[in-house]
Amino acid sequence: MEKKIITISREFGSGGRSIGRMVAEKLGYKFYDQELILHVAKESGLAKEVVAEYEEYATHKNSFLYAIAMSNGGIYGGMSFANQVQIAQAKVINNLAEQGNCVIVGRGADYLLRERKDCLNVFIHADMKFRADRIVRLYGETNKTPEERLRDKDAKRKVYYKSFTMRDWGVCQNYHVSLDSSVIGVEHCVDIIVKIVEDSRE
Amino acid sequence: MEKKIITISREFGSGGRSIGRMVAEKLGYKFYDQELILHVAKESGLAKEVVAEYEEYATHKNSFLYAIAMSNGGIYGGMSFANQVQIAQAKVINNLAEQGNCVIVGRGADYLLRERKDCLNVFIHADMKFRADRIVRLYGETNKTPEERLRDKDAKRKVYYKSFTMRDWGVCQNYHVSLDSSVIGVEHCVDIIVKIVEDSRE
Repeated sequence: MEKKIITISREFGSGGRSIGRMVAEKLGYKFYDQELILHVAKESGLAKEVVAEYEEYATHKNSFLYAIAMSNGGIYGGMSFANQVQIAQAKVINNLAEQGNCVIVGRGADYLLRERKDCLNVFIHADMKFRADRIVRLYGETNKTPEERLRDKDAKRKVYYKSFTMRDWGVCQNYHVSLDSSVIGVEHCVDIIVKIVEDSRE
Repeated sequence: MEKKIITISREFGSGGRSIGRMVAEKLGYKFYDQELILHVAKESGLAKEVVAEYEEYATHKNSFLYAIAMSNGGIYGGMSFANQVQIAQAKVINNLAEQGNCVIVGRGADYLLRERKDCLNVFIHADMKFRADRIVRLYGETNKTPEERLRDKDAKRKVYYKSFTMRDWGVCQNYHVSLDSSVIGVEHCVDIIVKIVEDSRE
């Protein structure tokens, strides 16, 4: 069946977001990333920045965000902050999928859309050196080493994905394609994904 | 760097072995699978059938195979049966890799050759329905349902891989490419792998 929706999950620094954008350009699909957060924020009635922070850093019962959640009515008053965000997010992602012809990066979209036959789920990862070089080039240096930043981000994405989906992050069986961009190359990854979508139209 | 060795790990019934054979044919590479067991058997001085059985059904301290191991001198006398097989197997696989231009299916070759830059590690998986239909078509029916046979094989491969490598089986980061043959199609999987190898020669 023709793949009209592509979800991209990725390790930080692997180039997964860039790959998603290039795939969208080549196929003439829409591309959703930060923009999606804005949609979610509007839907849930929560401030954009808070939702963004939540999505990056997941949910801990003793966190500041959780405290806000418990004192926050929102439009789903009475529910936890995490649940409010997740319900709003699911609604937005399902709406985007219904419209079709789009690439969605992150946000657990692979899980939310797992029953759709017109959805291709992609995972992009890369070795530590490739990712470390890339984040320093793109985002500059900080007082932490790039390796520390990567380990930190990986751990947070794992927790976020698990709390959201109850599945382990980065397991082959949850994706239709998984590619190591440090070995295959960012542009060849784009070509492979585009080719799979084109072949799905046969 | 040019990929001269391709390892294929796969779920039973996913078509991974067929994909490996077709990739080898298209690239003019040698193909090693059952043949490899024969090599291992010769190296270790153990009977072919026993090695084959070990490799399929892994190692349990209370198993019949373990009992044989403990009473068996072999050429590595004093070591456990599992260690004898693994050392011999590692030797054979490293020798094959040295000769290059080959596809090796299973046997934890991805782990053994993980330091080689000229090695492409591939994982092939597929959904339950695809695999169930495939094993009935290829191997016929038994008194177990195909789903039971698959769950049983999956569990055994997981244990074997873990006992051999100390890593989890089917984790994206352990492979350069992972493909769902039930969604992408067996022949398109072959094309993708061949293309990655050809691109690696640029």
